[in-house]
Amino acid sequence: MSSQPPHAALLIPGPIEFDDAVLQSMSHYSESHVGAPFVNTFGEVLSMLRKLFQTTDAASQPIVLSGSGTLGWDQVAANLTEPGDEALVLHTGYFADSFADCFETYGVKATQLKAPIGDRPQLDEVEKALKETKYKVLTVTHVDTSTGVLSELKALSELVHKVSPETLVVVDGVCSVGCEEIRFDDWGLDVVLTASQKAIGCPAGLSILMVSGRAIEVFKARKTRPTSYFGSWKNWLPIMQNYEAKKPSYFATPSPQLIHALHTSLSQILSRPLEQRFSDHKAASQKIKKAIGDLGLKQLAPKPENQANGMTAIYLPEGIAPPQVLPSLLKKGVIFAGGLHKEIATKYIRFGHMGVSVTDPKRDDIDRALKALKEGLTEVGYKA
Amino acid sequence: MSSQPPHAALLIPGPIEFDDAVLQSMSHYSESHVGAPFVNTFGEVLSMLRKLFQTTDAASQPIVLSGSGTLGWDQVAANLTEPGDEALVLHTGYFADSFADCFETYGVKATQLKAPIGDRPQLDEVEKALKETKYKVLTVTHVDTSTGVLSELKALSELVHKVSPETLVVVDGVCSVGCEEIRFDDWGLDVVLTASQKAIGCPAGLSILMVSGRAIEVFKARKTRPTSYFGSWKNWLPIMQNYEAKKPSYFATPSPQLIHALHTSLSQILSRPLEQRFSDHKAASQKIKKAIGDLGLKQLAPKPENQANGMTAIYLPEGIAPPQVLPSLLKKGVIFAGGLHKEIATKYIRFGHMGVSVTDPKRDDIDRALKALKEGLTEVGYKA
Repeated sequence: MSSQPPHAALLIPGPIEFDDAVLQSMSHYSESHVGAPFVNTFGEVLSMLRKLFQTTDAASQPIVLSGSGTLGWDQVAANLTEPGDEALVLHTGYFADSFADCFETYGVKATQLKAPIGDRPQLDEVEKALKETKYKVLTVTHVDTSTGVLSELKALSELVHKVSPETLVVVDGVCSVGCEEIRFDDWGLDVVLTASQKAIGCPAGLSILMVSGRAIEVFKARKTRPTSYFGSWKNWLPIMQNYEAKKPSYFATPSPQLIHALHTSLSQILSRPLEQRFSDHKAASQKIKKAIGDLGLKQLAPKPENQANGMTAIYLPEGIAPPQVLPSLLKKGVIFAGGLHKEIATKYIRFGHMGVSVTDPKRDDIDRALKALKEGLTEVGYKA
Repeated sequence: MSSQPPHAALLIPGPIEFDDAVLQSMSHYSESHVGAPFVNTFGEVLSMLRKLFQTTDAASQPIVLSGSGTLGWDQVAANLTEPGDEALVLHTGYFADSFADCFETYGVKATQLKAPIGDRPQLDEVEKALKETKYKVLTVTHVDTSTGVLSELKALSELVHKVSPETLVVVDGVCSVGCEEIRFDDWGLDVVLTASQKAIGCPAGLSILMVSGRAIEVFKARKTRPTSYFGSWKNWLPIMQNYEAKKPSYFATPSPQLIHALHTSLSQILSRPLEQRFSDHKAASQKIKKAIGDLGLKQLAPKPENQANGMTAIYLPEGIAPPQVLPSLLKKGVIFAGGLHKEIATKYIRFGHMGVSVTDPKRDDIDRALKALKEGLTEVGYKA
């Protein structure tokens, strides 16, 4: 039995529902951020992140800071690019616009390669762009939370390494790490950034990154000082190395409670083979996507290979808007999210299916959500 | 009775011991960051912060971001200064060095006005400096966590307004907000920045600021774009205004659990007159400082008017170093911090006395700590 009070199941694309033990870890009694027990916990968290990202390369460095997913963009732009550099930003929705805006804050020219809504830039378009301009970094949103579009990392990274080998491959994995397969070493990725509150299943408040040795070399070779203080790797790299070596170290105070919760969620994730976690999410997603189709509804991402496994963005029937359906779902104990992509925000809703809602067999969140969606649409006059 | 497992009392200058109800709020079930219940909670937190900082000026703006106290410096330097500007940094220990480093990251010349260890820059020295150079901002560490030195804000701010009225008065209140009197409006302050884990009594993970209408005007009048993304007020000001008006809004995902814990701690603080809270801390501090003196020990800050009320930095007897005393205190169930000021780190220890350890009459943390200190020193050969 859950120790949480009864509440509507949060099935948005993050924050997600949390396991009881993770939430209980949030209440951990106060510890010194430089005392041995906490330093040990933080060190273990960093080691576990290597496993989650599937990297065994000692030159890679996991980074965990108090902040949000957005701080991950900031770290990339502030540390890996310098004013005048160029970034190629693959656009699959809202979050590429924001990442581009972040680059421009740092004097970096961001060129967006846009796909039609629900699709992703094709490899031949990426190849053409990489051949025309020398980009310091290429960024890709692994799963765009605004559209539910999944990008293909392996082939994309191979292409970058072949066509423009000096370009760093940066992955926004905020809505993918923990539910989509990511092989950091094998796929030759340079940065994967994420946040705690999505498929990792820990409350919001942590910016989490894996950075390759190659990216760290690029950082070390920069000619100018990063013009950001809180996210500067000049300050953080030695601290993370020390924490991982279980040596106390201080730049800014971490949140012991969030780190404990992350320790619990990572321990749970790694207690089973990662492949099984990814296939659980895939199976739940396919079941959901079939049910959506059976209801006569369309997804923003029509092609199966472009569809995320941890969320589904669903067009509402003609004439029905999110403010009609969402309150009806809430009454049935389920919280979905409205649209976010600015051009079509009023036309669709988003259903997040990550973490315990998928992997905990004692929960019926997904079945309840599908039933609620069907009944809710019927109540507002939709006939499937 | 506490619901927390038995553990050594954390009496460092932050994080501090937390109230049970605050820690339980950390385990709040998952909520949407744009859903009405959470937006309402966040809005109340911002309104309560106005009371804590004693501002009724509608032009002031409270800001709460996921991050740490350090992110507050970042927000000040990134948003209120531009490359080429000058900052006068009053130095009472470690944290002024870091704030100066933060300014320099943003191309701002930081001039430090240093006092001998344990003292603070005098008003006539500040006046002289302000007359010689036009500073965009003056920063003062209200309580320097490395030395326990308390700065005098009221007279200092009056001086700045008189001698250099365009200079913004920025207060690092990380170790003072919640235990030292701060009258934001009456004293004419422009920014007070702090963090959640000190006298506010909420776990670490939140950067908290109060910004004056005058500072916001200076921000709006800047000629260049802030070169920081995550901490940019361009992104955050509208979000905070919306949260306070209880309208959903999104730039980066906040931590609902930390915001709930902050809501609980602020509700507890504001349930009593603030004056009483400040006088409780003063009384506990005087008792501690008297006991320290009775033990024959000296403080880093010898002058009573320079002594912080929420912490005490204590010189160890000649020949005794922190690594001899601290483990002995830990065995007696009390955690103190080692020295931090780089020039004398091995010669002193720090005792934090903030929040529930002072205000909760059911706790005996302070008496236990004084007893442990006396016995611990005797064990290592000290004769008072």
